[in-house]
Amino acid sequence: MKKRFTLLFSVLLSANLLHAQDSLTIRKIYDEALVNGKSYESLRYLCKGIGQRLSGSANAQKAVDWSKKLMESYGFDKVYLQEVMVPHWVRGAKETAFIIDGKTRIPVPIAALGMTVATPKEGITANVIEVQSLKEVETLGESVIKGKIVFFNRPFDPRFIETGRAYGTAGDQRFMGPAVAAKYGAVGVIVRSLTESLDDYPHTGATLADKDGKNIPAAAISTKAANRLSTMLKLRKLPLVKFYFKQSCQTLPDVLSYNVVGELTGTEHPNKFITVGGHLDSWDLAEGAHDDGTGVMQSVEVLRVFKAIGYRPKNSVRAVFFMNEENGDKGGAKYAELAAQNKEEHIAAIETDEGGFTPRGFSFADVSNDFIKKINNNWKALFEPYEVDQLTIGGAGTDIEPMKEKLPGVILIGFRPDSQRYFDIHHTPNDVFENVNKRELELGAAGIASLIYLIDQHGL
Amino acid sequence: MKKRFTLLFSVLLSANLLHAQDSLTIRKIYDEALVNGKSYESLRYLCKGIGQRLSGSANAQKAVDWSKKLMESYGFDKVYLQEVMVPHWVRGAKETAFIIDGKTRIPVPIAALGMTVATPKEGITANVIEVQSLKEVETLGESVIKGKIVFFNRPFDPRFIETGRAYGTAGDQRFMGPAVAAKYGAVGVIVRSLTESLDDYPHTGATLADKDGKNIPAAAISTKAANRLSTMLKLRKLPLVKFYFKQSCQTLPDVLSYNVVGELTGTEHPNKFITVGGHLDSWDLAEGAHDDGTGVMQSVEVLRVFKAIGYRPKNSVRAVFFMNEENGDKGGAKYAELAAQNKEEHIAAIETDEGGFTPRGFSFADVSNDFIKKINNNWKALFEPYEVDQLTIGGAGTDIEPMKEKLPGVILIGFRPDSQRYFDIHHTPNDVFENVNKRELELGAAGIASLIYLIDQHGL
Repeated sequence: MKKRFTLLFSVLLSANLLHAQDSLTIRKIYDEALVNGKSYESLRYLCKGIGQRLSGSANAQKAVDWSKKLMESYGFDKVYLQEVMVPHWVRGAKETAFIIDGKTRIPVPIAALGMTVATPKEGITANVIEVQSLKEVETLGESVIKGKIVFFNRPFDPRFIETGRAYGTAGDQRFMGPAVAAKYGAVGVIVRSLTESLDDYPHTGATLADKDGKNIPAAAISTKAANRLSTMLKLRKLPLVKFYFKQSCQTLPDVLSYNVVGELTGTEHPNKFITVGGHLDSWDLAEGAHDDGTGVMQSVEVLRVFKAIGYRPKNSVRAVFFMNEENGDKGGAKYAELAAQNKEEHIAAIETDEGGFTPRGFSFADVSNDFIKKINNNWKALFEPYEVDQLTIGGAGTDIEPMKEKLPGVILIGFRPDSQRYFDIHHTPNDVFENVNKRELELGAAGIASLIYLIDQHGL
Repeated sequence: MKKRFTLLFSVLLSANLLHAQDSLTIRKIYDEALVNGKSYESLRYLCKGIGQRLSGSANAQKAVDWSKKLMESYGFDKVYLQEVMVPHWVRGAKETAFIIDGKTRIPVPIAALGMTVATPKEGITANVIEVQSLKEVETLGESVIKGKIVFFNRPFDPRFIETGRAYGTAGDQRFMGPAVAAKYGAVGVIVRSLTESLDDYPHTGATLADKDGKNIPAAAISTKAANRLSTMLKLRKLPLVKFYFKQSCQTLPDVLSYNVVGELTGTEHPNKFITVGGHLDSWDLAEGAHDDGTGVMQSVEVLRVFKAIGYRPKNSVRAVFFMNEENGDKGGAKYAELAAQNKEEHIAAIETDEGGFTPRGFSFADVSNDFIKKINNNWKALFEPYEVDQLTIGGAGTDIEPMKEKLPGVILIGFRPDSQRYFDIHHTPNDVFENVNKRELELGAAGIASLIYLIDQHGL
């Protein structure tokens, strides 16, 4: 028995020592990020010095060049670009829209959805049919839909605690509404902005084209204007209320662009990788501060912090600024494709693309209950002092999604900040640097760095 | 063995059924708060319709009258005022301050600390001695301090994860700095604003007078101006750099004011109480949105939600809008005094005075490790889906603190929202309605209501 106890004791002791070492390193990571953090000032330049950076734009190229220089200035082991062809959609002149109530024209804020088409130069005027779902369009059918503007007006469900779930369940209206309405002969589509916030901002975002190639003009309308339009439709009935809108967006030929990659090469396993990334492109309406300036700045900060505290990872750790998440996902696909081609072994990939708000935890995609139990048993206590200890099964992110198929065995992980404020500003002119809190951003970078440190040390 | 298994099974079953009932009621509470919540619109009126409401001011009285009417409009079982005499400090004309650098006068933003005194009409001009701590003043002693303006400039420590801890450790400079400096003959005190944020706002807040009755003029200076002053002191040395400030605050005779109390009377134990409260008074510089408009609006929302979902508590549940938390704590003391006088049995009191940000959990004051383990075992799983599941030992709040002595056995609990943004706006002109997020506020009200429901059902 004595021996057994001794053994048990030494196992416990070594577990505690390991735990203590992890605990100390994580504290160092946080101290560096909170005391000497660079992510906030870098984000300021990305937002204020460069600004909006939709794929294919001159600003997107500026962002690529600046990001590469930023990584080089940190002295990472490798810094390089990955070529990727991306769509080049442009909004053109600012959109115009009116609710037409008899002889009265009431201007309302709209924004063309990404990848949609222009109206005729004179705009479109038509009767409006308000619907709550794609299914309702199908039920109403061509006899009702044909020649009309379809107005998708199902609001966010406020009962979800995580707002991402409300986005997930309301989002089909924007993603697929225009394609479905086109099938039944609609001449245009207006979608209630994907937010719970009652405000005057139209929230843009990509829509998917009809598989048959049909494409009708589609725009987001602000939630306040959506409520107004809905009320007028109920009060006045058709055909008194019409809607007019004009937009001049177009899709130009694809453009050569780049993912930006920085790497700390692993001291023991240089061909094994842990990737952390966000997307460098942003919508054209604002500065892409939370979507996803914070994500790329947190990603590069992970590597900077490791260097600053003298932590040399055993495995290679890469920060990737993906291009074209907003309207094509070409950068994410290219990264996975090249990694597979180069026979790289990928242990894990972490995406940060849900805003730079206070961290809550991480969600692990497609893992078993036993896996997540083990993660919680081993690591939850280390994350608790930093309030980033929700370690759950869930989604990871759009940019790393293609790695699942191309790189079997990789564990995909989503960084989960607090979700309450994200959709207030998502894809609107209000997604600006001023709405990012320095500490929240830094706590996110430190949390992600801590997770990567643990994976690097202990595997998954 | 069979019997034992049956027994075990039925115990488990009944535990599960209870748990299921709790889970359903909590879901109902959240749905009501998120779908039909009234706290946000009420807060808008408190901030925009009334505005700042420092104890003793006409606005504080307006806030009392309106709050009573609001509670009456909800049809609570009892609504009443509790008389309490409060200090009446007034700021007077806006303060003026300059760094004097030879012949150059550089204007800087300051705000008199609450309860401090005026400068002479012509202001004070003196050499500045920068210190990092109260101890440093004592070490330097009268020979250095006498005749000078003492400049307390120890910044927030960014390494704390919860910002309240940084406030706690830097706060002695504001609370006691002026009294300590006065002892050694200082003519005035300037305190670096209690925030990590680098901005142009002076953050006011109460200072404690010297026990011997000595009181010298004291003001908060913005963090940017504090950095500037500090840099100039280092570059130029004394006596080239001086500081000038002028303020005309005064303390008028005490004023009769009120706590506002609403109650749902318990169906089984009308003389047992669970109290939830925040403070109705606010600093005079802004709207007191997060400090503590959100707290009082969450408190009254708890009772409204109970009524709306038809939950009749077994014990009496009270919402209390305490008066005078900011500069005297008279309302909290009066509430505890009257409760003891009336021989009320108080089970628990919950204070919400850390801002209306995303809820993280609750901290229980002066409880044992076993107590907090039991709370976690019984209830953590119920709070997890709502992300308000940090149930820890910790502080509760200033307004309920006096209950500890007066009402032995009461458990004091602090509502803990996310702390990252609070001290950016705390006691500044930026503490306005626009900085409150509707969902974050509502989630807080629902979380507090859920905890009170559980305490009401199961005790503590």
